[in-house]
Amino acid sequence: MASTRDRIIVATNELFRRNGYNGTSLSQISEAAGAPIGSIYHFFPGGKEALAVAVIDTTGSIYRELFEAIAADAADPAGAFTDFFAGAAAVLMESDFIDPCPIGTIAREVANTSEPLRIAAQQAFDSWIAAARDHLVGAGVLPEAAEELAAVFVSTVEGTFVLSRTLRSTAPLDAAGIHLADMARRAIADSARARA
Amino acid sequence: MASTRDRIIVATNELFRRNGYNGTSLSQISEAAGAPIGSIYHFFPGGKEALAVAVIDTTGSIYRELFEAIAADAADPAGAFTDFFAGAAAVLMESDFIDPCPIGTIAREVANTSEPLRIAAQQAFDSWIAAARDHLVGAGVLPEAAEELAAVFVSTVEGTFVLSRTLRSTAPLDAAGIHLADMARRAIADSARARA
Repeated sequence: MASTRDRIIVATNELFRRNGYNGTSLSQISEAAGAPIGSIYHFFPGGKEALAVAVIDTTGSIYRELFEAIAADAADPAGAFTDFFAGAAAVLMESDFIDPCPIGTIAREVANTSEPLRIAAQQAFDSWIAAARDHLVGAGVLPEAAEELAAVFVSTVEGTFVLSRTLRSTAPLDAAGIHLADMARRAIADSARARA
Repeated sequence: MASTRDRIIVATNELFRRNGYNGTSLSQISEAAGAPIGSIYHFFPGGKEALAVAVIDTTGSIYRELFEAIAADAADPAGAFTDFFAGAAAVLMESDFIDPCPIGTIAREVANTSEPLRIAAQQAFDSWIAAARDHLVGAGVLPEAAEELAAVFVSTVEGTFVLSRTLRSTAPLDAAGIHLADMARRAIADSARARA
């Protein structure tokens, strides 16, 4: 059975995905987690901001591990990107278009007002860029090109989450999967030529 | 001199860019606009939500017109994308990394809770996609390819705004400008070959 701390993080994650950071109150979190507000402060003495840092750290790790697992299972290195966006599209449909991930919304809400949350989001994005870069380097892409394409991948994830939710359509995610796989294929071929 | 209604919209736009929708109160808007709350309700009887619809509509049009002006002035059709992202990077630096545009943050905050705001954001995104598509079609790109690339452009705008603000770096915008211009050049060449 999940610990109270874990239950609080899971409930908060879901509320943030639906309502964002400023749209979520501690009393909503308390109700959704089935934990009194005193218990939230026991685990997170810094209150909502400290809890949000924990949510971002946890979700950042889960998404990085998810990308690595998808990449390991993909039929070919470029296919990892198609598979990743197809997975996000499935999550979006199943959840009636709530955000697949709370980090981008929080990042935009607080980038100028909470340095701890901005830094937590930065570390999550950096870890995703590193995971995609390592995957591409493993597939033979030269390091600089891999770093650039990995950053485009993470920007595209965030951008397509905005568009797909707003348009209530998975089309932007589907197109992004095809597009990123194309770019990965081209980068692999370009790097092979550059090495030859 | 700006009308009171315009002053309210401009002040709200800037507060949303800094603090998001849920992080902005009517009393903050009243203070920033130098207009009593009664005056806000006079122009926007639906309150904060109705005011936000007006902000999204206004900003959506301004950005569409800005893209069209940049596209008309660009040295070549693909260069329009480099110029657009360079402009966004300059705005971000000048404003100490507050959001260049309030729409993406609002869209993510309210996509599941305010249908009027979701629809306003959808119309803004659709109008940007249409502007970029028309520009690409004018440059000779086949309509279907132009529509796809235009959607990637708008996703990339939104994604790089998230990343650049969070990383406090214009690097994602700079890379996106080069990347989108590259894709536009390739789409123009591919369409020319397909027509030949």
